[in-house]
Amino acid sequence: MTINSAMYEYGSKSSIIRELFAYGLERKKIVGEDKVYDFSLGNPSIPAPPQVKEALLGLLEEPAEALHGYSPASGDPQVRQTLAESVNRRFGTHFTADNFYMTVGAAASLNICIQATVCEGDEYITFAPFFPEYAVWVENAGAKLKITPADIKDFQIDFEKFESLITPHTKGMIINSPNNPSGVVYSEETIERLSELLRAKEQEYGTVIYLISDEPYREIVYDGLTVPYVPNYYADTLVCYSYSKSLSLPGERIGYIIVPDEVADSKRVMAAVAGAGRALGFVCAPVLFQRVAALCADVPTDIEAYARNRELLYNGLTEIGYECVRPQGAFYLFVKSPVPDANEFSECAKRHDVLIVPSDSFGCEGYARVSYCVSEQMIVNSLPAFREILEELRK
Amino acid sequence: MTINSAMYEYGSKSSIIRELFAYGLERKKIVGEDKVYDFSLGNPSIPAPPQVKEALLGLLEEPAEALHGYSPASGDPQVRQTLAESVNRRFGTHFTADNFYMTVGAAASLNICIQATVCEGDEYITFAPFFPEYAVWVENAGAKLKITPADIKDFQIDFEKFESLITPHTKGMIINSPNNPSGVVYSEETIERLSELLRAKEQEYGTVIYLISDEPYREIVYDGLTVPYVPNYYADTLVCYSYSKSLSLPGERIGYIIVPDEVADSKRVMAAVAGAGRALGFVCAPVLFQRVAALCADVPTDIEAYARNRELLYNGLTEIGYECVRPQGAFYLFVKSPVPDANEFSECAKRHDVLIVPSDSFGCEGYARVSYCVSEQMIVNSLPAFREILEELRK
Repeated sequence: MTINSAMYEYGSKSSIIRELFAYGLERKKIVGEDKVYDFSLGNPSIPAPPQVKEALLGLLEEPAEALHGYSPASGDPQVRQTLAESVNRRFGTHFTADNFYMTVGAAASLNICIQATVCEGDEYITFAPFFPEYAVWVENAGAKLKITPADIKDFQIDFEKFESLITPHTKGMIINSPNNPSGVVYSEETIERLSELLRAKEQEYGTVIYLISDEPYREIVYDGLTVPYVPNYYADTLVCYSYSKSLSLPGERIGYIIVPDEVADSKRVMAAVAGAGRALGFVCAPVLFQRVAALCADVPTDIEAYARNRELLYNGLTEIGYECVRPQGAFYLFVKSPVPDANEFSECAKRHDVLIVPSDSFGCEGYARVSYCVSEQMIVNSLPAFREILEELRK
Repeated sequence: MTINSAMYEYGSKSSIIRELFAYGLERKKIVGEDKVYDFSLGNPSIPAPPQVKEALLGLLEEPAEALHGYSPASGDPQVRQTLAESVNRRFGTHFTADNFYMTVGAAASLNICIQATVCEGDEYITFAPFFPEYAVWVENAGAKLKITPADIKDFQIDFEKFESLITPHTKGMIINSPNNPSGVVYSEETIERLSELLRAKEQEYGTVIYLISDEPYREIVYDGLTVPYVPNYYADTLVCYSYSKSLSLPGERIGYIIVPDEVADSKRVMAAVAGAGRALGFVCAPVLFQRVAALCADVPTDIEAYARNRELLYNGLTEIGYECVRPQGAFYLFVKSPVPDANEFSECAKRHDVLIVPSDSFGCEGYARVSYCVSEQMIVNSLPAFREILEELRK
């Protein structure tokens, strides 16, 4: 074999999301830009807040050799301290720069945490519906990803099913709340119950079980809902954060990992995080945007447009007759497929130039993800097509 | 084990370079900023050219949601096409956007190429002296790194020793010219002989042998010397480029991989590169600096200050009585240790507040690397200390 076959598979099997998006681009050339309703992608439609541009313009006044020079591998110490203090103010934590490792976005954060912790024979557990790349990263680290089936009642956690998956080989779990693709936020009750169960299992097995909290949507919540801050509930939490959604900077690849002091043997875990960063080639996250993140640490996320879109889409689709999970956060609406096979739903929608992602790739059948980080006008214009789709599928 | 022990080792064993640098910072607090001559780091001292700031200011006029949005995983197609055309103009190649994969700097580029190609039992070969992280990345991909001993005659390649290392398990080799730490550029004769040997071995074993050309210093050469463009000599070349040195943007993490059409089964190799990028979490390199790279594709690298430093340091040290490899490129001077053990040389220099890196970690004993990407004044001021060091060691 001249190349690595696993890597070839990862690179040649294109994801359904990317396929839909590419199809949409082609289709727009034929029927017109405004006649294709592309709800496939999670690319923020709200521009970065003006403070980002102000920060960049201010930084560009500094001498270029220092501005664009290397930072330490774990990131600029002052940036990390500023971010720590901002998190402390909001969540009552007591982090310092030493708890932070700056990363090239959420993919890097998760990959590093997984690689840092996985030993031979280890398993990670996640909860459907989930971001499909988790499987790629966990497998690539040499571990197994076990999936807790979705609790379609309210998309919290089915604890009975979850508990049956925990074994002495469980290295940790990955949660994502607010959730992509369900839009649901785990309640305080869920986080408390999860924490209690994990503590009990740690004690029973004499192991450490890491709870990786993947929280790029932490700031995007509606109706004044509070997202429980996971490290305040469970000691062995590793936080993976990204500014992709909160500051609308997905292309700039900037985020961080927090290893709280409360994590068992936290200094050694942070060393393993640094080592995984080194081995994977993720040292010194992009410096200009490290500084931007620090300067914008307390800038609130503008979620008004997403909130309006949520109302419009949720109300519009339920009035037509769709059954939808009411989103509490993120910018995704999870719609129940009117037919058992969500791929059939997505295919039918595609014929009406509506692009939505069948839920199978998120580890949960029978739904479709509708990304509403789009223009309000597109949602309004798409509703008649959604009506036709439902009518066609009910025939 | 609660964490991965290999990652812990990578993270807790600090490199000698980082140790020296940290020591220097502490020492400066005691004896004064200008009394410590820190030649340990390879952080460019020349600021980014003014075109970088102009490009950034121009880009910041664009709407933020598009400017900072995701690019395709392999990078912005227009950026890749622009870079391809720039390379074509300079080297007579015929690349297109499809041959390019944008990456988060050279570490990412190399890591991706290694992961994309390594299968079980594979070996990579490199040439001492070499960048020590090669060993981390090759090992982490599950392969073995074999080292061709340095040819201390002229720091080209000792082909006899090299040939004895090639086996049917040789997946490829990594070359770095202009070289960190020797400052030597491989001659056209060296590249031609290397290419011929590799072609013969490919035929003998019926295998593909990749030549990874790690070329962050490609633009930094002196005396009008030409760096042979490796893909023009050997078909199975993978180019790893970074703008860290050529545009003085080390902290911004922007570079690319080229998979030429001439590479055996090049489409599959590019798919494996994309797959490794995905598995490692390196998709969509930082978009703002992708655009900057394209806008500055034809900006010449300002090497005058490095050229002056080279003369000053090379002449200064040889006059004192040191034996030095005359640098042809990059910004490192490789000085022969006056005593057999380069660590003793470095320790003695440290006592004189001169920080230089012993060559052992580069896989080659008996030298020290002096990074001259520093101020001219510091070189001038350090010369008396270098004289004292030599006198002390000769006692």
